[in-house]
Amino acid sequence: MIEVGIIGASGYTGGELLRFLKNHSEVDVTTATSRKHAGIPIKKVHPHLQDLKLNFTDVSPSEIEADLVFTATPHGASMRIVPELVERGIRVIDLSGDYRFDDIETYEKWYGFKHKNPLEAVYGLPEVYREEIKNANLVANPGCFPTGSILAGLPLVNEKLVDTLIFDSKTGVSGAGIKPTEITHYPNISDNVIPYAVTTHRHGPEINQEINKNWPVKVSFTPHLVPVIRGILTTVHTFLKEDLTSADIKNIYESFYQDEPFLRVMDAGEIPRLSAVRGSNYCHVGCFEIDENGRIVIISAIDNLVKGASGQAIQNMNIMYGFNEKKSLEFVGLHP
Amino acid sequence: MIEVGIIGASGYTGGELLRFLKNHSEVDVTTATSRKHAGIPIKKVHPHLQDLKLNFTDVSPSEIEADLVFTATPHGASMRIVPELVERGIRVIDLSGDYRFDDIETYEKWYGFKHKNPLEAVYGLPEVYREEIKNANLVANPGCFPTGSILAGLPLVNEKLVDTLIFDSKTGVSGAGIKPTEITHYPNISDNVIPYAVTTHRHGPEINQEINKNWPVKVSFTPHLVPVIRGILTTVHTFLKEDLTSADIKNIYESFYQDEPFLRVMDAGEIPRLSAVRGSNYCHVGCFEIDENGRIVIISAIDNLVKGASGQAIQNMNIMYGFNEKKSLEFVGLHP
Amino acid sequence: MIEVGIIGASGYTGGELLRFLKNHSEVDVTTATSRKHAGIPIKKVHPHLQDLKLNFTDVSPSEIEADLVFTATPHGASMRIVPELVERGIRVIDLSGDYRFDDIETYEKWYGFKHKNPLEAVYGLPEVYREEIKNANLVANPGCFPTGSILAGLPLVNEKLVDTLIFDSKTGVSGAGIKPTEITHYPNISDNVIPYAVTTHRHGPEINQEINKNWPVKVSFTPHLVPVIRGILTTVHTFLKEDLTSADIKNIYESFYQDEPFLRVMDAGEIPRLSAVRGSNYCHVGCFEIDENGRIVIISAIDNLVKGASGQAIQNMNIMYGFNEKKSLEFVGLHP
Amino acid sequence: MIEVGIIGASGYTGGELLRFLKNHSEVDVTTATSRKHAGIPIKKVHPHLQDLKLNFTDVSPSEIEADLVFTATPHGASMRIVPELVERGIRVIDLSGDYRFDDIETYEKWYGFKHKNPLEAVYGLPEVYREEIKNANLVANPGCFPTGSILAGLPLVNEKLVDTLIFDSKTGVSGAGIKPTEITHYPNISDNVIPYAVTTHRHGPEINQEINKNWPVKVSFTPHLVPVIRGILTTVHTFLKEDLTSADIKNIYESFYQDEPFLRVMDAGEIPRLSAVRGSNYCHVGCFEIDENGRIVIISAIDNLVKGASGQAIQNMNIMYGFNEKKSLEFVGLHP
Repeated sequence: MIEVGIIGASGYTGGELLRFLKNHSEVDVTTATSRKHAGIPIKKVHPHLQDLKLNFTDVSPSEIEADLVFTATPHGASMRIVPELVERGIRVIDLSGDYRFDDIETYEKWYGFKHKNPLEAVYGLPEVYREEIKNANLVANPGCFPTGSILAGLPLVNEKLVDTLIFDSKTGVSGAGIKPTEITHYPNISDNVIPYAVTTHRHGPEINQEINKNWPVKVSFTPHLVPVIRGILTTVHTFLKEDLTSADIKNIYESFYQDEPFLRVMDAGEIPRLSAVRGSNYCHVGCFEIDENGRIVIISAIDNLVKGASGQAIQNMNIMYGFNEKKSLEFVGLHP
Repeated sequence: MIEVGIIGASGYTGGELLRFLKNHSEVDVTTATSRKHAGIPIKKVHPHLQDLKLNFTDVSPSEIEADLVFTATPHGASMRIVPELVERGIRVIDLSGDYRFDDIETYEKWYGFKHKNPLEAVYGLPEVYREEIKNANLVANPGCFPTGSILAGLPLVNEKLVDTLIFDSKTGVSGAGIKPTEITHYPNISDNVIPYAVTTHRHGPEINQEINKNWPVKVSFTPHLVPVIRGILTTVHTFLKEDLTSADIKNIYESFYQDEPFLRVMDAGEIPRLSAVRGSNYCHVGCFEIDENGRIVIISAIDNLVKGASGQAIQNMNIMYGFNEKKSLEFVGLHP
Repeated sequence: MIEVGIIGASGYTGGELLRFLKNHSEVDVTTATSRKHAGIPIKKVHPHLQDLKLNFTDVSPSEIEADLVFTATPHGASMRIVPELVERGIRVIDLSGDYRFDDIETYEKWYGFKHKNPLEAVYGLPEVYREEIKNANLVANPGCFPTGSILAGLPLVNEKLVDTLIFDSKTGVSGAGIKPTEITHYPNISDNVIPYAVTTHRHGPEINQEINKNWPVKVSFTPHLVPVIRGILTTVHTFLKEDLTSADIKNIYESFYQDEPFLRVMDAGEIPRLSAVRGSNYCHVGCFEIDENGRIVIISAIDNLVKGASGQAIQNMNIMYGFNEKKSLEFVGLHP
Repeated sequence: MIEVGIIGASGYTGGELLRFLKNHSEVDVTTATSRKHAGIPIKKVHPHLQDLKLNFTDVSPSEIEADLVFTATPHGASMRIVPELVERGIRVIDLSGDYRFDDIETYEKWYGFKHKNPLEAVYGLPEVYREEIKNANLVANPGCFPTGSILAGLPLVNEKLVDTLIFDSKTGVSGAGIKPTEITHYPNISDNVIPYAVTTHRHGPEINQEINKNWPVKVSFTPHLVPVIRGILTTVHTFLKEDLTSADIKNIYESFYQDEPFLRVMDAGEIPRLSAVRGSNYCHVGCFEIDENGRIVIISAIDNLVKGASGQAIQNMNIMYGFNEKKSLEFVGLHP
């Protein structure tokens, strides 16, 4: 049994951490912070969590007693909190972008912040870094778009089959967070499809870093907001350098992901869909169709709040503590 | 450990039964029938159930070996299947309307069928009939609208506080089933609100039967289809016969439902919402506002496929076999 | 040819006024104010109006030169602007609630403002006050819910057939205005139905005032936000005091509205639907079903931004200036 | 004044033709056929057209008397109807794919039909073929995806700036037609994004034909169904062969489309959005962002039922008869 704190528990990723941890038999959530809602019962903000007896509190990182802390804090805020926690011997899973980059300059260029407290961290994508996660004191939980994109593209890159990857992603609106903005105002996004940060999204360089580790690939990334609550569907367009069939590619993916608890490669003729992973930690990958120009299309589907954020964070926690990796994450997607 | 069969497993309620039973440690699903999809893996129809190894089969009721069978069959079809199962000593939870009525004439009038095989059944609303369900061999699982409506209205009726109840319900489209129809065609129902069977819906007499057991009330019921996948929000309009406050009424509800595992009465100022129960077996009840005319408004929210169908069926199964009533139903709503 | 100004042109009702007036051959829009967007081309805020050459300006009411001004300003703001315009001989159509009430006390009780500048105004519902509108200098344009509710209920009240009217309304999110709020945040309202101000909405007393002019009726009103961009569907539940048939009631409605350019009574068996009036100034009324308890259901559908706001304002302008009442409002609904 | 017939008037494109022609002062619609709904008033099927007095009829092409006929018939059906009409001296605008291909073999390969009646036709994209359309007796109205894709890509190809174009399109569900299917069932497509015919859609070769007329380009096309009623947003990913800036590209587009009545090139920083063209005949083109790999992104937005079908057909009719090209198409998009 471990004691866990959540800093920034009133947002969507905080709510998802609480939803999953509620049923985790090895975990006791002792602290859930929110400056704005301090003193208020959690159920007032997260109406599905009617039975949680906990109130939000506004404690400083130095006051938190816990074995593990999830920092569900914004980019720029995590770097002011995480170092102190790590120093105090608390293991941390950070859901912001602050510790995802190997290279501080890339971070600072794309996030527009000076990084005050660089620390060594493990990039928390279990399908790639499971061994490193086991002993990590600081895990940088991947971004939502990078999770879906890397998992869709990596097997091709691993086989050195492509030089260029175009990721055209369609994301649900919960990815924009709990705070209302112009783009998330219902009349603006309902019945619309809104491309944004078309060539300038901060998840582009994150995908690039991970995809390019062993083989040089030009990564292009464009996100679109779609009228969906949860989910990211990523369509990868790329050109095969060798003359392979769809079945060959499917084999490559199946073997790359064969023992993964949360990756499922779709049967031929099946396309990943958001509803099949809605609310769950699964990533579905498939399609593998090739057209007359040699373009191959790979499609992945995740829930941005789960495999793209809080579910993956719990998967990381399970790995760090030697729990069953699927513990409290057994839910399948809520389809329809 | 019991063996369970599902007849009609390819529809939405069949899919939900499979989703919940998948994680039920006391149940082994041995048969899932579908005439249309016989021989096909379940995951081809229910894409979220990728890890289910079972195929649909097309076996007759007489061939099914099981301790319990869920008949997720259409109205009119159940009556041709259920009697044989019951005769063979198999306990049955029927999700159709065929066994919900005390009075065959009412059934025949509203369903337009001749009832061929009337049988004694327990109306499967645990909040009212828990004791009877324990030993039942045939449970008639309530309709989706009746579940939300009865749970919203019964405490008032129990106190003889009202003579007339107007139920104005708003239902998600999954309530119409898995088969595409004109009304469920996306361009027709998206961005629309469609009243239907405004005074003639078959769930009207079902609500009437249960609400009127101990105190005469005039029941009026009108359903509306709304652009929502899952959920029924019911707004009850009625006039109090005594001069009570909102707080008085809230107390009546809290005491009526005090030990119920799946009923939650909302705090003052909170309104039930569909997302808070989405995918879960919970029913949220609340509002209790009273206007200058003495009209009181009660609001309930359920997931039509869960508390309104398959979740309640599993709750009934848990009661029938003495399992923990919440077993495999611990999920809270998928909000947002 | 008249010159028209719009005060508060950057909101949804401002955008709709501009959309309709753009094609009005008798009108020249000379001023469109917005404090926030002063100096910016209108198309930056209203992306569908690409060809409008006008910029927003921030001029005070005393500087506006126009024959007619639409004040698309919030409640409480109009009362500080309208009197000066009227004094200067400019005719005004006010889209706020500030001049809709005969009785200042009712206004002040429900709006929570002290009314500083009461003025005589005509309630701008052409189906009732067409003659008075012709010569009005100040028209108080009706609220969106009152428009749909009054038009649905008035023929019954006119015949003294009912004592009590329950209006259960379902509104699209654009009714909440252009400013993002928690309730209009896409993940909150998508896939949800949210009752609000259940017994306390300010449109309740407005409906009450107009319905009760000639015959006493108890009015109860409850609005619900639904995941729809535009439209209000109102379900009226009431009990007939005389033994009439659906056909009788339909005749009453047809005769009440026989020459109305924007009212359509549905054929028997047809139910008004939002898509049929989407973007248009039409109001569809129908249903007229009667249940075993003598409850009759009337249903109306309007576009809240058009017949419920800007379209009706232009209809009023057409009446005031003797233009063809349908001028620039010929569009039918955008279905599907 | 011309007399016009519509064959296949009960579908969505038929409904849109009727909606626009209703207000066209030079056109009298004398026939609207529907085998299924013969004898029924049009408003029973198209509920927004309450004032149309016409009934559907089931007349054979040989009986139709008209100057012009729109054939809103399925692929494969048009080829059995059009030749007889043309022979009888009736001008035809065909909305199916039957006459869009220069090369019968390509048609037969992708549509899986033997073409029985090849005829010379003009491809009805006014921005390219306006002169030819003027005197055409048979206009093949472009497909919805090709309209949005060609208009987005052509200016780049015209300048020989690219060799490869990847069209990633997101389409509203009305593009699938009025007939309910599994993929258009609300619970399946709501809250989902569904790629389909990922490398095999019949609009691929149509785009290819028109894009490749003067400069060889490899065309790749992938459509996605999104939870939107109307609209196609196309994201074009391509790599520039010359070192040009976004501003250079914007200039190329502005000059290419400078006098076009329905093309609007977005200002820098503005992205086309579906709501801005919803219900209208406009095509918005913009974005022009270039990333570090030299990839440029072009985005176009149209309403699939209007510029992608019926609106364009009426634009073609206006050109054929020398009417003002914008006649009855003055509506701008219904935003929000």
